Amino acid sequence: MAHTCNIFAILLCALAVNGQTSAKTSGPRNLIFMISDGFGVASEALARSYTQQTTGYPSNWGSVLDSVLVGLTRTRSNDTLVTDSAAGATAFSCAQKSFNGGIGISADGRPCGTVLEAAKRKGYVTGLVTTARISHATPAAFAAHAADRNMEDLIAQQMLGIGIGLNSSANGRGSVDLMFGGGQCYFLPKNNKAGCRSDDVDLWQTAQSQGFTALNNRQQFDSLAFNAPLPVLALFAPSHMAYEIDRNPAEQPSLSEMTAKALSLLHSASANVPADHPGFMVMIEGARIDMAGHDNDPATHLHDILEYWKAINVVRNFISLNPSTLLVSTSDHETGGLTLGVEPEYAWYPSVLKPVQRSAEVICKELNRMTGRAQLDRHIARVVMPQYLGITDSSATEVSTVSEAIQSGFKACKRAVGHVISARARIGWTTSGHTGADVGLYAYGSGSEEIRGSMDNTQVGGFLASYLGVDLDSTTRELANLSTFQKDVEKKRQHKHEHR
Amino acid sequence: MAHTCNIFAILLCALAVNGQTSAKTSGPRNLIFMISDGFGVASEALARSYTQQTTGYPSNWGSVLDSVLVGLTRTRSNDTLVTDSAAGATAFSCAQKSFNGGIGISADGRPCGTVLEAAKRKGYVTGLVTTARISHATPAAFAAHAADRNMEDLIAQQMLGIGIGLNSSANGRGSVDLMFGGGQCYFLPKNNKAGCRSDDVDLWQTAQSQGFTALNNRQQFDSLAFNAPLPVLALFAPSHMAYEIDRNPAEQPSLSEMTAKALSLLHSASANVPADHPGFMVMIEGARIDMAGHDNDPATHLHDILEYWKAINVVRNFISLNPSTLLVSTSDHETGGLTLGVEPEYAWYPSVLKPVQRSAEVICKELNRMTGRAQLDRHIARVVMPQYLGITDSSATEVSTVSEAIQSGFKACKRAVGHVISARARIGWTTSGHTGADVGLYAYGSGSEEIRGSMDNTQVGGFLASYLGVDLDSTTRELANLSTFQKDVEKKRQHKHEHR
Repeated sequence: MAHTCNIFAILLCALAVNGQTSAKTSGPRNLIFMISDGFGVASEALARSYTQQTTGYPSNWGSVLDSVLVGLTRTRSNDTLVTDSAAGATAFSCAQKSFNGGIGISADGRPCGTVLEAAKRKGYVTGLVTTARISHATPAAFAAHAADRNMEDLIAQQMLGIGIGLNSSANGRGSVDLMFGGGQCYFLPKNNKAGCRSDDVDLWQTAQSQGFTALNNRQQFDSLAFNAPLPVLALFAPSHMAYEIDRNPAEQPSLSEMTAKALSLLHSASANVPADHPGFMVMIEGARIDMAGHDNDPATHLHDILEYWKAINVVRNFISLNPSTLLVSTSDHETGGLTLGVEPEYAWYPSVLKPVQRSAEVICKELNRMTGRAQLDRHIARVVMPQYLGITDSSATEVSTVSEAIQSGFKACKRAVGHVISARARIGWTTSGHTGADVGLYAYGSGSEEIRGSMDNTQVGGFLASYLGVDLDSTTRELANLSTFQKDVEKKRQHKHEHR
Repeated sequence: MAHTCNIFAILLCALAVNGQTSAKTSGPRNLIFMISDGFGVASEALARSYTQQTTGYPSNWGSVLDSVLVGLTRTRSNDTLVTDSAAGATAFSCAQKSFNGGIGISADGRPCGTVLEAAKRKGYVTGLVTTARISHATPAAFAAHAADRNMEDLIAQQMLGIGIGLNSSANGRGSVDLMFGGGQCYFLPKNNKAGCRSDDVDLWQTAQSQGFTALNNRQQFDSLAFNAPLPVLALFAPSHMAYEIDRNPAEQPSLSEMTAKALSLLHSASANVPADHPGFMVMIEGARIDMAGHDNDPATHLHDILEYWKAINVVRNFISLNPSTLLVSTSDHETGGLTLGVEPEYAWYPSVLKPVQRSAEVICKELNRMTGRAQLDRHIARVVMPQYLGITDSSATEVSTVSEAIQSGFKACKRAVGHVISARARIGWTTSGHTGADVGLYAYGSGSEEIRGSMDNTQVGGFLASYLGVDLDSTTRELANLSTFQKDVEKKRQHKHEHR
């Protein structure tokens, strides 16, 4: 048969099969969209080479992410060649380019329907998982609409459906059925000592009145049954969750643990409804990969990446049991201008990262509590260098660099710590902000063969909508009258500035 | 039919078709392997954004290279995480990792058969095209075997088959039928004023006695008929050819012009032989993309990339007429640690590159001829800044930076010029050397669907061999007795150092 088969028949047949696996299919299908925030092509090479060298894997070994690479995502926003996370996430969520800082908003300043909102309106069960505040730019852009990412009071309200006008649920609830992450403080009123809102709104109470199981610690998370009913709101930290390198497993779950439980709850919830249920859609973010990049802190960047790989493995295992599921993973942008190898050597040294025990952030918080140069120098030389960074032969220059930096501020301290490690590892950084290079695009599972090559970030968003079979435009039309929206946009335009 | 076709029948049929397009096929097939030396993921974003902004293309526009992206290539060498071009090219040519500096040589120090040599032994017509010296690391690794890339006297000889022992041709000629590039000086004896060899060997004469049509200028190139017989040796410069930004079209052809003529000659030569001829194999290198990266010179880097795109277009047009042809394009490594966007802005400015007229290399050669700080400052302020770089408001600091750099040396001057432009464009660099990030992998034409995802550089080489249907091991066995080889390797090992 091999030599007699009709190539045209095959092509026609293949096209038909192809069409069948895309938007037109019936039966449940799940979308797991993952964002490794601020994860550049060099970030993956860093984690791969570290793993090769610390495990003895061969020089041609590739990671679990490498095994599902399908292309690259182009990252620019509408108004600049270097996007922020708000415009970056909006390109994925709305399949439109926005201006930097814009959350679920078009370049012309109008709210745009997101893949999550449209999925919810079509009957999908929905979720957002992140290691950042749940109201931070990336998750926000899937379930909120704001002129500026810093309007987190408003964003947290919208994520519970308040003022958003979509009426996704009978009890006034918003479009998101499951939220795991940090950022409880934006759900608590200003008179609560754990709160950070500027008003008296108690969203934690609101969520519970909407039917949410609300929890904020590891014990409650562990007690939550793997088939517990939705909605669930689980926020494990007042602000961002801990970096993986700093995380106390008794206090917070890891990204991969949140991923495993989220997939179980979403799958269970979508299996408990009628047979024509479309499935679930979840966005899972490795958020702090980016923040470690901002701090030019290579070991912290590394450990959040290794944890992201674990989450990818969890997803792959889920897909092996639930094949009608698509994983798409990509990044919004590169952060830090990370490069591996600094002149004059043609080399870099992953082993330098191995003994590092704490993030620059935690180290500098500790240094911030010290007073006097002598105390600082002593603590840096005797504790920070040997115990936290694994540097037993620190130079006077390395010590004084960090000591002087903390006196210029917290941010300067974090970068100084990062640069001490980077210099020894021969790792280069060019900025504390983002850069404009393309980032990796990964896919696995049902329909993954349809996403490949070089894709604009808006095309990735368009593909997600097409896979889910949802119409973003109709959701956008429902959002048209979002209250006070245009006024906020004008205010934002008058005070345009850049954000992390 | 669409809904009744048997999926298993399709898969079997597809597998058979798949097998048929790979190594087992009969009939002519051509391989065009292109290397954009030192071209990182950010390099492509730089050229894409420049083109978007200077032409008014939309923000989601992609280049001709973007349209054929299939994955990423992992670049490390055997002995370091940051490869040089010699080990990088050897990974492609021999499908083996070598040590930095090694040309067509295994990690254990033995010569390894290359895809070009193996192709020649199977009857393919072969070619090498580069903008560098033809004896430079990248082309050398396809047709020579040396312990160190700097042994260019030996490499040039081997590229004509001398001392290599493969006896590819009745008249003692080597494995390469067509060579276009620079580097005539290594083909001329030391007593020739244009020569740079350390001996009296006249390879230009040798090539002609082997039957090569040997030419060294634009007029001869233009006069060469598009169906002229092979072998042809055309070397247009004593050392490297000009950067595209500096090139005088009356003196040297461009990379795309060389590509068009090379494809025509190779196609014509392979069409003139019996019907069972396997076709041709050519390696085409955009070599100086890398050198501009070493100099941190963004406009020069850009124009060599834009010319590489033109060469890709030439290849795509060739494939549209000759569909049994595969294009694979990738890079050996990233160079310079190029990143787009420097704090505090989330932006970079391609328009800064538009008025730049000359490479830092040409500018610094001119400055090298000046004497005295006053003359230097005046020339930089009145000529270099406004006329060569398009900077009409240069600051005293910018002028003095360049002026002081030239006094520290030629290399310092080139980087200072590059950094003046980069600072205005908000482009970052971390090194004058290479870095360890993955690079883009592109493919188009017959069999291109079989190469995709994240591939180790040695896997790319293995794919080339498989596509050509050649056995590298048998060629390696023929090379086993290459004279004095092991001695050179030992010498190299004792004086290990890094190279560009």
